[in-house]
Amino acid sequence: MNVNIAFVGYGTVAQGFTEIILEKGSQLKEQHDLSIQVVAVSDIKKGSIYDEKGLNMKKVLSLAKNNKPLEDYPEGIKGMNSLETITKTNADTIIEVTYTDVKTGEPALTHIKAALNAGKHVLSTNKGPAVKQAALLLETARKNNVYYGFEGTVLSGTPALNLASYTLSGNKITGFKGILNGTTNYILTRMEEGMSYEKALKKAQELGYAEADPTGDVEGLDALGKVVILTNVVLGKELSRTDVKRKGITGISMDDVKHAKEHGKRWKLIGRAEIQKDSSVLASVSPEKLPLSDPLAGVNEAVNALTFMTDELGPVTIIGPGAGKRETGFALLIDMINMKYQISR
Amino acid sequence: MNVNIAFVGYGTVAQGFTEIILEKGSQLKEQHDLSIQVVAVSDIKKGSIYDEKGLNMKKVLSLAKNNKPLEDYPEGIKGMNSLETITKTNADTIIEVTYTDVKTGEPALTHIKAALNAGKHVLSTNKGPAVKQAALLLETARKNNVYYGFEGTVLSGTPALNLASYTLSGNKITGFKGILNGTTNYILTRMEEGMSYEKALKKAQELGYAEADPTGDVEGLDALGKVVILTNVVLGKELSRTDVKRKGITGISMDDVKHAKEHGKRWKLIGRAEIQKDSSVLASVSPEKLPLSDPLAGVNEAVNALTFMTDELGPVTIIGPGAGKRETGFALLIDMINMKYQISR
Repeated sequence: MNVNIAFVGYGTVAQGFTEIILEKGSQLKEQHDLSIQVVAVSDIKKGSIYDEKGLNMKKVLSLAKNNKPLEDYPEGIKGMNSLETITKTNADTIIEVTYTDVKTGEPALTHIKAALNAGKHVLSTNKGPAVKQAALLLETARKNNVYYGFEGTVLSGTPALNLASYTLSGNKITGFKGILNGTTNYILTRMEEGMSYEKALKKAQELGYAEADPTGDVEGLDALGKVVILTNVVLGKELSRTDVKRKGITGISMDDVKHAKEHGKRWKLIGRAEIQKDSSVLASVSPEKLPLSDPLAGVNEAVNALTFMTDELGPVTIIGPGAGKRETGFALLIDMINMKYQISR
Repeated sequence: MNVNIAFVGYGTVAQGFTEIILEKGSQLKEQHDLSIQVVAVSDIKKGSIYDEKGLNMKKVLSLAKNNKPLEDYPEGIKGMNSLETITKTNADTIIEVTYTDVKTGEPALTHIKAALNAGKHVLSTNKGPAVKQAALLLETARKNNVYYGFEGTVLSGTPALNLASYTLSGNKITGFKGILNGTTNYILTRMEEGMSYEKALKKAQELGYAEADPTGDVEGLDALGKVVILTNVVLGKELSRTDVKRKGITGISMDDVKHAKEHGKRWKLIGRAEIQKDSSVLASVSPEKLPLSDPLAGVNEAVNALTFMTDELGPVTIIGPGAGKRETGFALLIDMINMKYQISR
């Protein structure tokens, strides 16, 4: 299968994915009969370039990495904006990787809808649209007979959505719980070793795990978005951000951490949701004191983990990275491989 | 897609799979466009029944559960042996679930080769053939343009082979390590709580985890077979049983367990293999003292776990059941769903 892709947004994740397809092109062709060609790149800051016969992505990547405008690319059509790139190029697959706004989902939401309604597949690591309207977007994709993949919105490249909807499908999944935010897990790991919250946060910022304003991580907002996505997609239940009880880790003291350790327990920020007997959903993000016998208790540092409750297998847990340029870029590849098999049926 | 299946062997796993397809038929049709019909069942002890128009599996299951001969089924053709059932029925997919012999692989090996060479798909939870000749059987399947799935040979229904070859594909997997045997993990968990090896083994036997002769589990032979399968299939390297260094858990004393616990460590029977710089493979089954920070250290009771070393994501770990009637039956369903997408490309 030949895939013609257009990038909408060309930041670190898009660049990570470009590196992967440049390095692994022949492997993808051989293993999965996938030939990937990039025909367009449009970025609000870096500019835009389109060549229906395919771009030389080594050149494009080099421009982006050297902070040069994409219009320096020697050939092709310049200056097309996001929506023109989505609707007026010969791309059949749009990689939507603009910045995330989980409150409005914009501008990504508009981009994705435009692409799906134009009969184009969409692969995206953008949390905003998935948090706001995952179910609607999946339905729009289905109606237009195209694919919408957003694996990277949950655990970056560690399979969560594809694991549930493909590899574990056949199970009824009735709930999940997980360590869905790496920054807070890193901070809690350091605190158990005796480091103060403030120092641990500073270290997380130095390592690039936490942003200058850490509210999204430490108050549980990032984990909350993932709970919403998983509930809508994996549990098949409507849930919006305001339906989730939320508590971050800022209220956890060194004494709390020590006390838990003395009793063979460990604090983790857990995002969870479970279908209730009346078929409603109870969802929360909150610090929980786990016994060390819980597989999630053994997940330390910035690592993420997710346990699905299944009817056939009982709890099944996946543990892996939850962030990173290559890791998140890789999520787009998982989606593309899955797309390949889903649409050829 | 319509699938006509024949069971060769009709023990607990086959019955577990029958229950699953009886209960989940409409879900499989809706989610994956899979319509499954059983046309034949042949078992060396229970007898054999064939109806090209499809068997009433509720009746067949009831006969098997009540220890009645399958020939009591009211209609159809009786008395076909395994090879006749494989080659002379209208089944397009053979479920090979006869007893396992990891030394010779027989009679399953003969069954599987006959099926693949007759242009029939094979789904099997039988370790013997996979340990002996996984690579050859996969090649035979490829040549005949059919599918050979054997997910259940590693962690029962917890996805291991499908996780690696599908959901994580795009990664280069350079090694793995895992808790591949539930019985020994159960015994080590009890020993850490202070129970003697002998008592823990007896308890494992009472619970049905360990057999009357526990050698296969406690001496690491079962785990060894899984290391061989994973190395051949996931690492793509030839390895036979005699290439693996093996040590069981019988040499681990209460003192060893206590000593590890005092130092924040925990004994686990670890099966592992890693591709070396000269591209050879180093593989072993051996008790290892893991630090509690290792995700595998937090996996207790009869639960299994497997960590893949990947180039894009680093270590990715899956944790779930490694045995059980429904769980292993479910592995056949994972394979069938994967088969559906693979062959329709």
